[in-house]
Amino acid sequence: MRVAVLAHELFPHRAKTALGVLRYGDFEVVAVLDRKLAGDRVNDHITDVQDAPIVASMTDVPQADALIIGVAPIGGGFDPSWRDDVRTAIEAGCDVYAGLHYFLGEDEEFVELADEHEVELRDVRRPPEDLTVSEGIARDLDVHIVLTVGTDCSVGKMTVTMELVESLQAVGIEAAAIPTGQTGILIEGWGIAVDRVISDFAAGATEQMIRERADDHEVLVVEGQGSITHPAYSGVTCSILHGAMADQLILCHEAGRERVHGYESFPLLELEAARDLYERLAEPLAPTTLAGVAMNTSSLGAAEAAKACTNVTDSLDVPCVDPVRDDASQLAEVIGP
Amino acid sequence: MRVAVLAHELFPHRAKTALGVLRYGDFEVVAVLDRKLAGDRVNDHITDVQDAPIVASMTDVPQADALIIGVAPIGGGFDPSWRDDVRTAIEAGCDVYAGLHYFLGEDEEFVELADEHEVELRDVRRPPEDLTVSEGIARDLDVHIVLTVGTDCSVGKMTVTMELVESLQAVGIEAAAIPTGQTGILIEGWGIAVDRVISDFAAGATEQMIRERADDHEVLVVEGQGSITHPAYSGVTCSILHGAMADQLILCHEAGRERVHGYESFPLLELEAARDLYERLAEPLAPTTLAGVAMNTSSLGAAEAAKACTNVTDSLDVPCVDPVRDDASQLAEVIGP
Repeated sequence: MRVAVLAHELFPHRAKTALGVLRYGDFEVVAVLDRKLAGDRVNDHITDVQDAPIVASMTDVPQADALIIGVAPIGGGFDPSWRDDVRTAIEAGCDVYAGLHYFLGEDEEFVELADEHEVELRDVRRPPEDLTVSEGIARDLDVHIVLTVGTDCSVGKMTVTMELVESLQAVGIEAAAIPTGQTGILIEGWGIAVDRVISDFAAGATEQMIRERADDHEVLVVEGQGSITHPAYSGVTCSILHGAMADQLILCHEAGRERVHGYESFPLLELEAARDLYERLAEPLAPTTLAGVAMNTSSLGAAEAAKACTNVTDSLDVPCVDPVRDDASQLAEVIGP
Repeated sequence: MRVAVLAHELFPHRAKTALGVLRYGDFEVVAVLDRKLAGDRVNDHITDVQDAPIVASMTDVPQADALIIGVAPIGGGFDPSWRDDVRTAIEAGCDVYAGLHYFLGEDEEFVELADEHEVELRDVRRPPEDLTVSEGIARDLDVHIVLTVGTDCSVGKMTVTMELVESLQAVGIEAAAIPTGQTGILIEGWGIAVDRVISDFAAGATEQMIRERADDHEVLVVEGQGSITHPAYSGVTCSILHGAMADQLILCHEAGRERVHGYESFPLLELEAARDLYERLAEPLAPTTLAGVAMNTSSLGAAEAAKACTNVTDSLDVPCVDPVRDDASQLAEVIGP
C-alpha cells in the first residue's frame, strides 16, 4: 500500500506518527508532506528509516492509496492548514487515516467528499463501542506481560515496543505488541487508543486487548503512554499500568531531556525515582520490576550515547540500550519469568 | 422540587446517589423506589437523612417533578428492570435525572416518550463538549485546594466534601465543592463526571472546574473518585490528583473494609501506605500533605467508632472523624496554608 504522510512543520523529530510509520509500518511511503522541508528527502534528516521525497502539499504527491496524518499535537486537534491536503487527497481517491481526537469521520465537509469519491476516512483513535471497566484479571492470564513506561511523552515507548517484539521473535519467542496509541495502531493494524477511551474504561480497554492476545502468545509487550507524573496524561499512564498488571517494566527516557515536553515548568523524574514510583504504584495490584531501560540517544554522538547507556546500567543495575541505534536484543535477554 | 429516587434492591447502603440526595440535596424526596423494602420508610433503615416512604414502583409514587436514578452500578449500565419505572415517570410528566454511563438521552424509546410528554432527560454524567488537556496550572491559582482521596470507591469522599465545605462556611471561610461525580453534580447543580471524560482530558476537566471557582473562593474542596490502587478506576483518581494539585488531602476510609469493593481478591492499602502513595505521586507536580482522615463508621457502635477514630489519629498524627456521625469541624480546623 502506497501512502503519503502529512507532517507539516514537525518533521522529523516532532512528528512521531510519521517516523513510526516510516520505520515500522507495512507501507510504501511515496512522500512526506512538510511545507518547511519541501525539496529535501527523508534521509537528509533521518537515515535509519525508508527514504521518500518531502513535498509541500498533497498536489505534489505521486499516486498514493492513502494519506496518513502523521502528527499528534497536544490536545489532538485538526489544524485548519491541513484541510487543503486532506481535501486534495480525497479528491484523488485516497483513503485518509488519522489518529487525532478530532474525528475526520465527524467533519461534514470530509464526510460528504469521501462519500462522493468513495474513499474511507479511518479515525484510528476512535474507541470501540463495547468497552467497560477492568475486571482486574490480567495478572491471572497465562502470558508474560511487559509494559513500556516513560519519564515523559514521546521518549520511545512505541519504538521500544516494536523493537522488543522483533528481538523476542528473533530468538523464537511468540511475542506480540499491544498497541495503545495511534501510531502503534497504524503500524499493527489493530488496537485501542487508550487516551481516547472514557477514563472509567481505560484500564478495561488495556485488559481487553491483553485478553484477546494472551492465549496464543508467550510474551505480550504493552505499549505504554505518557508518564506517571505528566500534568495532563498521568491518568492514562496509571490506567495502563493497572490494567496491564505487567510482570516487567521497560523504562523509556530521552537522553538530555530534563523537563516535561510542553510543560517546561515541570522537571522530569530521575530514572531511579521513576523506577521507584512505577514499581510502588503497581505493587498493590500486581508486583512488577524494572527489567531494563530504553534510551533515546538521537541527540548524542556514538561515544556519548554508549557512555550514557553505561552510566544508567551502572546506576540502575539493569541493561540500558538505545533500541534504534542498536536493537532491543539486550533487553530481550532479560525478559521472562 | 419534589423527587422520587430509584434505588431498587440497593437501598440504603449500596445506593450512594440516593443517600447523597436524601442527605444533601435541595430536593423534597416524596418516595424512594426499592421493591425489596416496599412498605418501609427511609428512617427505618437510616436515621440521619430526610424521611420518605419506600415504594415498589413508580406507580406508587405521589405526584413528583422528577425521578432520580439513585444507584450507580459498576460499569454504569441501565438495568432493564428499571425501564417500567422510567416509562411511568415520563408518562406522569416527571423529568428524569440519571448519572449512568448509559445515557437516557440516547435511548430511543425514552427520547420519543420524553418528547411526547414534554419532559427533560438529564444525563448528569454527560461531559461538556469543549474539554481539553490540563495546562498544569491549578497550583498557581490563588486558592487553597483540598482533595478528598480514598482507600476505595464508596467510602465517603463525596460526603466529606459536602460536610467539609459546610464546616468551613460555618466559620466564615468562602469554601465551595468541586463536584466530580454524578451524586455531587446532582446535589450541587453543576460539575463534570470526570470518570466519563476522555482519559486524555480527565485532569483537564478537573483543572477547568477549579479555574471556574478559584477567583471567588478561599478554599475549594475537590471531590475525589475511586482510589489510586483500584483495579479499574485508578486512572480517574490519578487524573484528579494531578489535575487538582491540592495543597492538602483528606483520606477517606470505611471502618472494617479490607478488600476492594467488587474486586475482593485485592486488599485495600493500609491508611499509612495510602498516605504515602498519594503524597509521593502528587509530589513531583505539586507537593501535598495529608491533613486528616474521614472514617465511615456506620457499621460500628458509638464507642467502637470513637475508638477507631482515636486509633487512626494516634497512628497517623492527623485528626480522624466520621463526618456523618459527628461533623467535619475538626477537619475544617486543620485546613489552610
